[in-house]
Amino acid sequence: MIQCPRGTRDFLPDEMERRRYYENILRKIAKTFGFREIATPIFEETELFITRSGPNILNEIYAFKDKGDRDIALRPELTAPVMRMFVNEMSNEPRPLKLFYFGQCFRYERPQSGRYREFFQFGAELIGNANAETDAEAIALAASMIKALGLKEYKIRIGHVGVLRQMIAKAGVPQERSAEVLQKLDKKLYDEARSLFESMNIGSDEADEIFRITETTGGKEVLDMISDDAASYLRELIDMLSAMNVNDVEIDLGVVRGLDYYTGMVFEAEAPSLGAEKQICGGGSYSLSELFGGEKVFSTGFAIGFDRILLALEKEGQKFDNTGIDAYVVPVSDDVRTESAKIVSMLRSNGIIADIDIMRRKMAKALKHASSVGAKFAVIVGKNELNENSVTVRDMQSGEQKLVKLNKLASLFI
Amino acid sequence: MIQCPRGTRDFLPDEMERRRYYENILRKIAKTFGFREIATPIFEETELFITRSGPNILNEIYAFKDKGDRDIALRPELTAPVMRMFVNEMSNEPRPLKLFYFGQCFRYERPQSGRYREFFQFGAELIGNANAETDAEAIALAASMIKALGLKEYKIRIGHVGVLRQMIAKAGVPQERSAEVLQKLDKKLYDEARSLFESMNIGSDEADEIFRITETTGGKEVLDMISDDAASYLRELIDMLSAMNVNDVEIDLGVVRGLDYYTGMVFEAEAPSLGAEKQICGGGSYSLSELFGGEKVFSTGFAIGFDRILLALEKEGQKFDNTGIDAYVVPVSDDVRTESAKIVSMLRSNGIIADIDIMRRKMAKALKHASSVGAKFAVIVGKNELNENSVTVRDMQSGEQKLVKLNKLASLFI
Repeated sequence: MIQCPRGTRDFLPDEMERRRYYENILRKIAKTFGFREIATPIFEETELFITRSGPNILNEIYAFKDKGDRDIALRPELTAPVMRMFVNEMSNEPRPLKLFYFGQCFRYERPQSGRYREFFQFGAELIGNANAETDAEAIALAASMIKALGLKEYKIRIGHVGVLRQMIAKAGVPQERSAEVLQKLDKKLYDEARSLFESMNIGSDEADEIFRITETTGGKEVLDMISDDAASYLRELIDMLSAMNVNDVEIDLGVVRGLDYYTGMVFEAEAPSLGAEKQICGGGSYSLSELFGGEKVFSTGFAIGFDRILLALEKEGQKFDNTGIDAYVVPVSDDVRTESAKIVSMLRSNGIIADIDIMRRKMAKALKHASSVGAKFAVIVGKNELNENSVTVRDMQSGEQKLVKLNKLASLFI
Repeated sequence: MIQCPRGTRDFLPDEMERRRYYENILRKIAKTFGFREIATPIFEETELFITRSGPNILNEIYAFKDKGDRDIALRPELTAPVMRMFVNEMSNEPRPLKLFYFGQCFRYERPQSGRYREFFQFGAELIGNANAETDAEAIALAASMIKALGLKEYKIRIGHVGVLRQMIAKAGVPQERSAEVLQKLDKKLYDEARSLFESMNIGSDEADEIFRITETTGGKEVLDMISDDAASYLRELIDMLSAMNVNDVEIDLGVVRGLDYYTGMVFEAEAPSLGAEKQICGGGSYSLSELFGGEKVFSTGFAIGFDRILLALEKEGQKFDNTGIDAYVVPVSDDVRTESAKIVSMLRSNGIIADIDIMRRKMAKALKHASSVGAKFAVIVGKNELNENSVTVRDMQSGEQKLVKLNKLASLFI
């Protein structure tokens, strides 16, 4: 038997209904914030992802040659495609552009809890400015989405790439090695960072001070410890968020995010219930369009790991009830099949979710099937009742039955 | 500048809103019929598609090796993945299973109008039986979906694979060459079919009779020309469809559909406005699960070419109006930005689609932007008005302005 490829999933009806429900909550909130949906292809020229993330990305993506010998890759993320689209097709549109997307991404990595080779991201990009209002819009959207999904335990941590960048530069880390150092700090790999510092002749006091900053979290008071620019910016941002009723955030000066193109504020959200793979959202302000041949444009964006956040909801015990169907039509005998088809069509054309037995089952088995598809009512079509323009409607919960005139049937469900 | 790969598309906000609108109509109708959504991965083991369609499929799909040296392929269609999923995970579920899907498929072919390398299919599979009710459910769903989208000109043509299979067998086409012949007949390549017949020593009278049948279309009366089994089955089906108020169908004995696994009824829908690439829907009853290691189960399914049907709607001049946003909040001066953020948040938390100026534009330019994002109202936040707990609301259509108390603002939009 052929299975679905390792790290990918089939979504069966119950699970898919749940996923669409939550997906639509995210979509609705994004729209409420004035964001509009866009979509880009599942694969792109491989070059696009190398330009954004460097050649090492090749080790973890699905990259291949198409029949025309082009290098293409399944998208591992959506910020680069969205910025490519912006540069190619939207750079003359009035700004800001507020865009969101939902779709599959692909990474060739070892599958584990919350990590798949095909995974789903919901993300937003606000293109056109860099200021506290822009960043507040993005963070407030992320916070509102997480809240709207019903997640109870989560933490949003806000930092600023300028803080550590400035500190390590001042300590003597040369520009070209700063990404390397920041990546260690991002992952809190202090021993490795210390070796790097030693190799650059940076004293252990300075290293300790840097490590202390990466561990610094709290309210606005922690901003007193850092440089004026980043501190005053983050103060303005926190105030703006507070005006927007987003208070469940903390400052975390250790939020670095590995990549060079972040320009200022960075943020992450995590769900503690997920354990090791607890990050559910990450983003920040960045400048990327110039890498793709456009002019430099400041943006703020983030992506939510849709699979992970659903996993977190599950771990918190959030229940989702499938809707089921309104009516299941059961022909009592073969000679009423055509009339039954007429009845089911009439119900459907009134917007009622209605199904009909096509297995030619006997009554008891047909009613069992009606239960198994979650029907609220069975509509039993018998010859004698039909002669009086009636059918029997059975409440599948209580088992109560009553005779209903055909011309009153639809209104029973509306 | 990096472009999106040949044959793929970016969907910008206006187009995406239109696509989601139509996609949701299809989804809603499918649900009304008791079908439930499922999803399968974007790529599968290449073997799956070869098993369904034969090795020639390799010439037109995106097939490649992953880093684990597995042969995988971007899905060119969704029936095989759905049947794989059925065999692996749903074969013990109560039948029938009524499943639908919507997603991208991929074919490496020359892009042209209505043909893309990444294209979207909406499809449904009814798994578990082969009878007139089953086929009627599938065709009625396809017809209802096409109608619900608002397509005016379309034709649904119903045939039966048994008719031509029986005729060519009787004429002397050996079983193992029948697929080859049927493919020529499917494409109405009569000269090539005639050469094939000659090579099999089939007389030209018999060939002509076969060609005549492939050209036979009409109402139930054409069924008098063909064998009893197929004719009586199609009669029953047409009557069932008629009971379901699906009358815009015709019988077309030339509908063949190339593949071996079709077992009986086959149907297609076309939109004449599309010219050469006019087919918008195709399907039929089939048996495929046994190829994937499951037991033999009869099914009926179809797929709608979503891109093509949207193209047809466009050609018919169907307009789609984007929704725009409800409110665009404009801070008159920097000292009301925080209060303005509070106001936009209050509107959003009431479910109102609200945006706010983050470009720090002056009034005239901000109002221009409000227009460009399709705002119905501008909410102008000035210091003096705020002191009286009021804002100015401007109707963007008429230009009329009025002062509104903050505690009445949300109710203006609901």
